[in-house]
Amino acid sequence: MEEGAESRFLVRRLEVSDYEKGFISLLSQLTICPPISFDEFRSRFMEIEALGDNHVICVVEDTEQGRLVATGSIFVERKFLRGCGKVGHIEDVVVDSAARGMRLGQRVVGFLSNHARSVGCYKVILDCSPDNRGFYERCGFVQKELQMAVYFNPLPPSS
Amino acid sequence: MEEGAESRFLVRRLEVSDYEKGFISLLSQLTICPPISFDEFRSRFMEIEALGDNHVICVVEDTEQGRLVATGSIFVERKFLRGCGKVGHIEDVVVDSAARGMRLGQRVVGFLSNHARSVGCYKVILDCSPDNRGFYERCGFVQKELQMAVYFNPLPPSS
Repeated sequence: MEEGAESRFLVRRLEVSDYEKGFISLLSQLTICPPISFDEFRSRFMEIEALGDNHVICVVEDTEQGRLVATGSIFVERKFLRGCGKVGHIEDVVVDSAARGMRLGQRVVGFLSNHARSVGCYKVILDCSPDNRGFYERCGFVQKELQMAVYFNPLPPSS
Repeated sequence: MEEGAESRFLVRRLEVSDYEKGFISLLSQLTICPPISFDEFRSRFMEIEALGDNHVICVVEDTEQGRLVATGSIFVERKFLRGCGKVGHIEDVVVDSAARGMRLGQRVVGFLSNHARSVGCYKVILDCSPDNRGFYERCGFVQKELQMAVYFNPLPPSS
């Protein structure tokens, strides 16, 4: 890693001002993510913000360029099993194609996993393609089950 | 299916009175699920109930015996991608071992999938063991990805 890279990249929660820092275009590197207006962004941001620690979106900002280069989210599910246990679900992890190879993905997954642990989850889970299995194994994950899906709308099922 | 089975089994949302109808012992057929007090049950029930249509637990009651024989849950995740899309996550589907072969599992999954569709989700997803893949394929699901997990606590990772 180049010198200063640690301080250049700031890992933090999503803020409403991140609309101007390329959050949506970053997500579009992961899956279908058409542009949305600032009002749409703010409205969805407020819905998620209202859930507090139960739904957190992590971003990595390149402070030299003032734009986002990685993100991932987690929400906390409350169960009855395991003595009213909680599970953290990680979703939508992506690193900008120009910022790969600097372990930013691992920092995002670490931030989210630490959050899950801090709020008392007994496990954290996620779904990934076979191509990304090695990355998550390096983050400490092991394969457990199969993900199954049904799509309701006519968009192609790329995510 | 025996005559009257359709009306014998009532598919509905979990109610707080279901603590007395074997809800926790039903879940214990799925994974580690130690007994909890009624106060613990009611407290977790209220937390989930407060999420309204964003976290729904379906149960099937055998009205002849006054006890629960199947359950499954779904929670709705709000995203920014796909034009601020929503995804339904199905969890904790189990049918009582004495009530299998009556398509109660399919009724639970159908109830939960219909709920996801009705609140505007673009897809519904779940994780299952390879042994249950055929069941979910009969419910209309297709395999998409791999589920990865990290466990934080010392309990054995059976779920």
